[in-house]
Amino acid sequence: MTPNTHKHQEPAKVHIALGERSYDVCIGQDLLSDPRAWEGLPGGTLGVIITNDTVRPLYASRLQALLATRHRKVLVISLPDGEAFKTLASFELVMDRLLAEGADRKTVLYALGGGVIGDLTGFAAACYMRGVPFVQIPTTLLSQVDSSVGGKTAVNHPRGKNMVGAFYQPARVFCDLDSLRTLPAREVSAGLAEVIKYGLITDAHFFHWLEENAVALVAGEVSALQHAVRRSCEIKAWVVGQDERESGLRAILNFGHTFGHAIEAGLGFGTWLHGEAVAAGMVMATDLSARLGMAPQDLLPRLRTLLRRVGLPDAAPALPGGEDEYLHHMAVDKKAEAGAIRYVLLQGLGQAVVKAVPDEQVRPTLRACLAAA
Amino acid sequence: MTPNTHKHQEPAKVHIALGERSYDVCIGQDLLSDPRAWEGLPGGTLGVIITNDTVRPLYASRLQALLATRHRKVLVISLPDGEAFKTLASFELVMDRLLAEGADRKTVLYALGGGVIGDLTGFAAACYMRGVPFVQIPTTLLSQVDSSVGGKTAVNHPRGKNMVGAFYQPARVFCDLDSLRTLPAREVSAGLAEVIKYGLITDAHFFHWLEENAVALVAGEVSALQHAVRRSCEIKAWVVGQDERESGLRAILNFGHTFGHAIEAGLGFGTWLHGEAVAAGMVMATDLSARLGMAPQDLLPRLRTLLRRVGLPDAAPALPGGEDEYLHHMAVDKKAEAGAIRYVLLQGLGQAVVKAVPDEQVRPTLRACLAAA
Repeated sequence: MTPNTHKHQEPAKVHIALGERSYDVCIGQDLLSDPRAWEGLPGGTLGVIITNDTVRPLYASRLQALLATRHRKVLVISLPDGEAFKTLASFELVMDRLLAEGADRKTVLYALGGGVIGDLTGFAAACYMRGVPFVQIPTTLLSQVDSSVGGKTAVNHPRGKNMVGAFYQPARVFCDLDSLRTLPAREVSAGLAEVIKYGLITDAHFFHWLEENAVALVAGEVSALQHAVRRSCEIKAWVVGQDERESGLRAILNFGHTFGHAIEAGLGFGTWLHGEAVAAGMVMATDLSARLGMAPQDLLPRLRTLLRRVGLPDAAPALPGGEDEYLHHMAVDKKAEAGAIRYVLLQGLGQAVVKAVPDEQVRPTLRACLAAA
Repeated sequence: MTPNTHKHQEPAKVHIALGERSYDVCIGQDLLSDPRAWEGLPGGTLGVIITNDTVRPLYASRLQALLATRHRKVLVISLPDGEAFKTLASFELVMDRLLAEGADRKTVLYALGGGVIGDLTGFAAACYMRGVPFVQIPTTLLSQVDSSVGGKTAVNHPRGKNMVGAFYQPARVFCDLDSLRTLPAREVSAGLAEVIKYGLITDAHFFHWLEENAVALVAGEVSALQHAVRRSCEIKAWVVGQDERESGLRAILNFGHTFGHAIEAGLGFGTWLHGEAVAAGMVMATDLSARLGMAPQDLLPRLRTLLRRVGLPDAAPALPGGEDEYLHHMAVDKKAEAGAIRYVLLQGLGQAVVKAVPDEQVRPTLRACLAAA
């Protein structure tokens, strides 16, 4: 029962090499109580934890106590939970609080929560006095494997998601695997959609590993989760490292997202979780790849099996406007540029390419995947 | 009378070397009608001119016509003139308009105006969809010699100036010397304060040149203005090139600004122009440098003479709270860090250093400079 006797998984580290903006993603259990974890991080008089009302009661006071050894004063700013609060109004509220509390250029912000908190805190850190350091402590699987690498920060605008933001890198990321214990199973599955995506687009070996470890992952086995998070971060880091400001290769990270976005927009954002929409979107993108003769025919059934095993949808929902509604949502998505919609497709397991496909060639995929639903 | 026969000063160019964020500052007359000026700049379907209600009637339609050859659609967003509108509310208004007009990642923003427009537009460009290109067309002498180099963008917050912003570089800067013709004489003088600052902190030779050309500058002689703008941009570029994110050397650019800030805050922002406050601030900083035995004794009278010749104050205004009020404002200024206030001082003409000076040693300077007023 004593915490010290509890056997922990040794922490893993992924180094994100971005020149002077390089940083480490640390993945493990009870990471923050190890003083080594904080080595080299900025101190500063004031530390500010930005979190939400769901995560706060679970972790904020423990983090606050740990940070009290690093900062003379530690504040907590808690926002209501949910995408609806990832707004310029919340951003302004954070600016107001930081200024009211006398935060200076050495103040460190700590993002404690999922993607919404990470994106908002990162944007606040990018802009407060033109940039203060921030540390990410993602508490969901999705944010651990997605937003912890890449430096994308943003808030939403009524006219579109992530329309106002910045590229800004954290000083460090702590992926605490213990925080996944309190995460609802549905959200763990949603995070696994992005994990599976990394295998599909770049690493056939990792995809095999996921097929073999699906049960362990869903059961919350720590060593399996650690490998999944680590490998995901490594892959994302490799992609982002080649294309920090998103001009080319990075687009492959949107595999499944163009179809997925149509699902989210069509059903109304929040009806399906982002990861669920991406799962169905990957089915559609894989189907399209196979129909265009690019991906092997056996890949689609393998993907569907894997998705089902980790509790994710393996087919797309019907939208009121049918195929046309899908095409409409995809055309207005920002990934679409003049003319045919561009899709991320698979040239084989572990190899993604971006390709414009005329609507007429997409319709058979829509029909097949909707019919299967 | 035909524009073509009008003899123009050959344009000058200052290259700001910042790796992949490098850009050119072009300085001359009628720059924008020369197609070569635009070479290598991004096109994009949409171009958006951001300006204010004072500058708009003077230049916006001419710029709009020129841009019509580069963009399918050219919009103008005009804000009320003045520092009071350099706010998050104006920033949000720009975001709203850009989204409403369907601006995408290739949209180019054009900042047409002084420092307020430049700072606001730069911040909007930094954040819109996480960064779109922007071009600066500074129309005041101050913005041509100050904000056209350095990549500082920001808006104000009720609790402080420039509290929310980003470091973000323009794609190009066009300093049109013709736009200075419509600038009130008082604003030309205010701009010259920063020009004189560059001589004082880094370049004795340039300071001599300014002493010799003060009359020509005030008279608006184009070749003199061009040299002053060019040399100022070169010096600022040199300083910023060594310290893009403002950790050390760049602080010398604040010469005269700590005292100047106290004047602005004490009189109420806008009572004196920023350049006027900097002029008096430079007198105080030079006086302090001489008293500490760092600067030669003859520098202060030379500086005062030069300031008077270009129509700038050479002494500081009394504040209701006297010396104490000066010290109070300087202590809360963001340049102050725990303990003694840090000042940029002159070790000689053309050489600046940053040094903490105890209040007691600053009081004689305050008494002398206020008494002289």
